[in-house]
Amino acid sequence: MPDKLKLTILGRGSAIPSKLANQSSQILGIHSKYMLIDCGEGTQNVIRQLDLSLARLNHIFISHLHGDHILGLPGLLSTLGMLGRKGTLNIYGHANLEKYIEQQISFFGEDFGFPIAFHAIDPFHPAVIYEDKAMKVTSFPLKHSIPSNGFIFEEKPKPLHLCKEKADKYGVPISQYLNIKNGMDYVDEDGRVIPNAELTLPADPSKKYVYCSDTAYNEKMIPLIEHADCLFHEATFLSQQKLRAKETQHSTAAQAAEIARKAKVKQLIIGHISARYTDFEPLLEEAKAIFENTILAEEKKSYWF
Amino acid sequence: MPDKLKLTILGRGSAIPSKLANQSSQILGIHSKYMLIDCGEGTQNVIRQLDLSLARLNHIFISHLHGDHILGLPGLLSTLGMLGRKGTLNIYGHANLEKYIEQQISFFGEDFGFPIAFHAIDPFHPAVIYEDKAMKVTSFPLKHSIPSNGFIFEEKPKPLHLCKEKADKYGVPISQYLNIKNGMDYVDEDGRVIPNAELTLPADPSKKYVYCSDTAYNEKMIPLIEHADCLFHEATFLSQQKLRAKETQHSTAAQAAEIARKAKVKQLIIGHISARYTDFEPLLEEAKAIFENTILAEEKKSYWF
Repeated sequence: MPDKLKLTILGRGSAIPSKLANQSSQILGIHSKYMLIDCGEGTQNVIRQLDLSLARLNHIFISHLHGDHILGLPGLLSTLGMLGRKGTLNIYGHANLEKYIEQQISFFGEDFGFPIAFHAIDPFHPAVIYEDKAMKVTSFPLKHSIPSNGFIFEEKPKPLHLCKEKADKYGVPISQYLNIKNGMDYVDEDGRVIPNAELTLPADPSKKYVYCSDTAYNEKMIPLIEHADCLFHEATFLSQQKLRAKETQHSTAAQAAEIARKAKVKQLIIGHISARYTDFEPLLEEAKAIFENTILAEEKKSYWF
Repeated sequence: MPDKLKLTILGRGSAIPSKLANQSSQILGIHSKYMLIDCGEGTQNVIRQLDLSLARLNHIFISHLHGDHILGLPGLLSTLGMLGRKGTLNIYGHANLEKYIEQQISFFGEDFGFPIAFHAIDPFHPAVIYEDKAMKVTSFPLKHSIPSNGFIFEEKPKPLHLCKEKADKYGVPISQYLNIKNGMDYVDEDGRVIPNAELTLPADPSKKYVYCSDTAYNEKMIPLIEHADCLFHEATFLSQQKLRAKETQHSTAAQAAEIARKAKVKQLIIGHISARYTDFEPLLEEAKAIFENTILAEEKKSYWF
């Protein structure tokens, strides 16, 4: 299992694509799985340009039903089918997203050739929407002009590191390794208890990635997202357009940074930048003045954390 | 009025986008108008990257209703609306395309903010679908797995060049210039007839561009397209995949070239290349062996003729 999560930005723009930015989309690589987050027009083009394996993609998370977050879905599903996909694809989004997918199937007169498991997201309350042995995904409500959800991708606690030398010293049989990695003490044949702490080193930290787009400034999310290793937060506008941000229920770069600071995250990535800007650096500067560890999302680039 | 037509390739690929090719789309620049031909996913992205003026785009021609020719339409229409378009946009395509557009409007719950005039194409017979003073567009049936149309963009005959020296010599008043440019003789005040040929030089040739995609090899189109200044013909496959081409109702590069040769066109551009090819040069070589004046479509590149 790779140590780090890998986030690849496919699109860092907002509603209107520009020379600098495609519509929203990104892929989180976690435990050899690809999790696609939002799917604006052209998502599949960038995936193919980067040679990302579509075989590893089994889960798609859609934040909300504005076109710049879903218009790439029909083409991507069609391509998956043409490439011979047979396995189930899980799609998580607002209940109406299922209707959108059904409309596509109905218009083109055939399904995509593989099963789709659609998972409707509760737009009002945080909820675990995916879970396996090693990780879970939680959706939570954002504050936007239509129902919009953020996503928290969290690794579960990892096993402790077994200290092989100590295990040998106390004659621990291999059959007990897993129990010890999971935190149990070792009791030897004479009934002597070797405390777990004597046999192990701390586990690797579990990572947490949070995606927040589209949303107005919203402190309510802070308890959920705090201490994230990486937070992607939309920063559609500069503070100069603060009123416009409020009207359209988007955030400024400063507001994104304020959330990052208050939530004590380790790293902030800003994106979903408006096509009105022909230079994105001022947005980065604005955010960094409030939260130093900010990165401006770059398309086709990957970030490890 | 610019002398030449300008064809810009936005996408030269087929159903599945690849590193080498986007889905089908191109723009013909004619008499300061932009005519968009097909609109695969990502069309608006390339338009924006090339800074092509969307204000000049009033006509969109869709060959057929496979996803790789229409999936870019919802995003493009949405962007036009967000950029403040108010004028009517004309869309020409199979009758069911109107349903596709209506589905988008119905799903997103609002129209695009400007009027769309939809023009259903007769899928069985050639027909003039657009006409103005200087040009016309004719649709004609192709041979594909679903109804598919080619398009012929033709300039109307242009005015003759008035020979100013001769006009002065014979005392032709300015009020008569337009008549003479349109081919009339000049009759002077004494009733003397000056033949038109004495006063004029030949008109610039009228240009003809033909778009044929998607289609199997089909000689029936030849009488319609012959002597075109430029023919874009799909070449999805190499001749090695001739059977696959027949099954899927597509053409090989050799077949595209054969049509160009038999139709005595001046220039052939091949495109709609399958994503199975990681090198497109062999397709060009195959076509050139039959029709020397062949070009392999390059994306984001413009061709004048």
